Amino acid sequence: MTDARVLSIQSHVVHGYVGGKAAIFPLQLLGFDVDAINTVHFSNHSGYGRFGGSKTTADELNTILRHLSSNGMLRPQRLLTGYVAGPDALAVIAETAQKLRSENPGMIYLLDPVMGDGGKIYVAPEVVPIYRSMLPLADIITPNYFEVELLTGIVLSDLSSFQNAIRELHVKFNVPNVVISSVPVTHALLSSIPEPIQASILSDDHTPGVVYAEDALLSITSSRRTSSDDPTPSDVHALLVRRIPGYFSGVGDLFSALVLAHYRPDRPQLADSQNPLSKASSIALSTLHAILVATQKHALALPEDERTETDDELDGVDPTRKVKRMRGRELRLVQEQDLIRAGSSEAWNGPHMVPWSDFW
Amino acid sequence: MTDARVLSIQSHVVHGYVGGKAAIFPLQLLGFDVDAINTVHFSNHSGYGRFGGSKTTADELNTILRHLSSNGMLRPQRLLTGYVAGPDALAVIAETAQKLRSENPGMIYLLDPVMGDGGKIYVAPEVVPIYRSMLPLADIITPNYFEVELLTGIVLSDLSSFQNAIRELHVKFNVPNVVISSVPVTHALLSSIPEPIQASILSDDHTPGVVYAEDALLSITSSRRTSSDDPTPSDVHALLVRRIPGYFSGVGDLFSALVLAHYRPDRPQLADSQNPLSKASSIALSTLHAILVATQKHALALPEDERTETDDELDGVDPTRKVKRMRGRELRLVQEQDLIRAGSSEAWNGPHMVPWSDFW
Repeated sequence: MTDARVLSIQSHVVHGYVGGKAAIFPLQLLGFDVDAINTVHFSNHSGYGRFGGSKTTADELNTILRHLSSNGMLRPQRLLTGYVAGPDALAVIAETAQKLRSENPGMIYLLDPVMGDGGKIYVAPEVVPIYRSMLPLADIITPNYFEVELLTGIVLSDLSSFQNAIRELHVKFNVPNVVISSVPVTHALLSSIPEPIQASILSDDHTPGVVYAEDALLSITSSRRTSSDDPTPSDVHALLVRRIPGYFSGVGDLFSALVLAHYRPDRPQLADSQNPLSKASSIALSTLHAILVATQKHALALPEDERTETDDELDGVDPTRKVKRMRGRELRLVQEQDLIRAGSSEAWNGPHMVPWSDFW
Repeated sequence: MTDARVLSIQSHVVHGYVGGKAAIFPLQLLGFDVDAINTVHFSNHSGYGRFGGSKTTADELNTILRHLSSNGMLRPQRLLTGYVAGPDALAVIAETAQKLRSENPGMIYLLDPVMGDGGKIYVAPEVVPIYRSMLPLADIITPNYFEVELLTGIVLSDLSSFQNAIRELHVKFNVPNVVISSVPVTHALLSSIPEPIQASILSDDHTPGVVYAEDALLSITSSRRTSSDDPTPSDVHALLVRRIPGYFSGVGDLFSALVLAHYRPDRPQLADSQNPLSKASSIALSTLHAILVATQKHALALPEDERTETDDELDGVDPTRKVKRMRGRELRLVQEQDLIRAGSSEAWNGPHMVPWSDFW
């Protein structure tokens, strides 16, 4: 167990596992003291359709931060920021990240620029430039593919657009470590993915087989080269994960927390093919997949009206239909806590991300 | 692992372990999904002298509760209420407890009437009658001795005052299970404590020995008799715990969470001398003591200026002196999580509370 402290700044929901509720417990299980600033206090996540509560204002955040600082409590070894409600509050968090970074250059900051998913933005557009200004402060960022598009302005369609976006994040925005997780695999993209990566798909039943585009999600890690005589800008790894049907909430928040927890640049004992980011992401993807498998198994065993298919039309007629389904698909973090703890073992021996040696 | 859900309503502090921060993680470790409503959002607990943040208003609580209810999320198997800021907010919680109780008579409600400690009240006096009105809703209450005095109006000085207060809680307020923990042991009280209880004092070094009054804290459990032909009103157990020097925060909040987690009235396999409350309290006291021993050990290993003696005069001159000391004495819940998990084992074999057979 380490003595490190994480400052986590993200949402709080009373019921269910998104934001801080998806991140804090896993970080604690993995040995971190977590200081938790809540950016909202909501009944449940917005995906349920019906939710209520309040957002923490910029003033409230400043009051809390000022008191933490005056009590010598604003000195985390690691910083994790997720969903922040609105540009005023985000500006306060950006200022805090800047202050913490300048006070402690060795602090590890994982920035999850939570703005949207699947082509839909769910924050005010004014937050996008604030996130851009925060990127150079981060050690690791964990955008989904849509957030990469918002940050870089590059539409991710084929391999060369990924190359351009990742280069821009490393070079223009000065981010050392980029993780893009759960990218839907199009046919165009699939044909560019090297055979060794296709062959090692992480799947429920561990049976290898032909990968179909709609069937898989791609996760990519890219760590900037530290040696300037290397002709390529970064060290890239990837892993395909077989998609589990249906929608789960809090997946990105849990993933970011796990990447931060397992990122240990001070530990040199890595397999030849790995770097600290790919190793951390390997454990995070593997843990996350196991949690999702268990959650799906639980959901499938529920009574019929709590495991309906996603159908926007039927959900529109009866909002409780959706609510019931989503309740049954909340992450099984508590029941499956041993899966999370297993990742902290020095002897962790799960599947690793595969080097994408000819990415550049 | 159980599938039970706890609704926890108490304070949230960013840094440190009191209120929800002391209760939620242990409940999760012990297998409970925890829905967490935060009654305040403060930088740290008030004992540091400097703190800031906001209280959740009665309106905000009502909004959150209404949405939880409309989404079918207000059906906990267990309810835990702790610190609530002010009479308006407490009235909302009282109404909620009433509603949940009437909807689910089988729900287990642990009410910790947080009002003060050591003779000092730290809530508005208007909350006292509200707590009195809530007592009949609870299955278990965990007041400290001062809160017993506030609730009953009886000053706890000797054995007969304890008898009167406990009788009143059972009979007048209709509470089936009462736990009074960490009662300072006066000379008058010590002489009334039966020899078997004195002999079994829970101590750091496990060495039995003479009990000195100032050296020990007494915890008492009292479960109302279910059979009406028993002449005594309740089944009483007690345990002395050797006091660990200095002040620790969040102890009562952790204790209440542990009692609730380990209270299993549905499991009949108890030793002859135990009832569900005394068994739960035995595990809770034992876990708590182990956490405190580890926390003290950690605090004693800190640099000198972070482990100063409590001295109000010196603290008054230099407020950071107190802040530093308190930071170093935050409960080591994360680092010692295995101590908490150990209590969930069916084979738990720690020291049990001792029957106080001639209490009445």
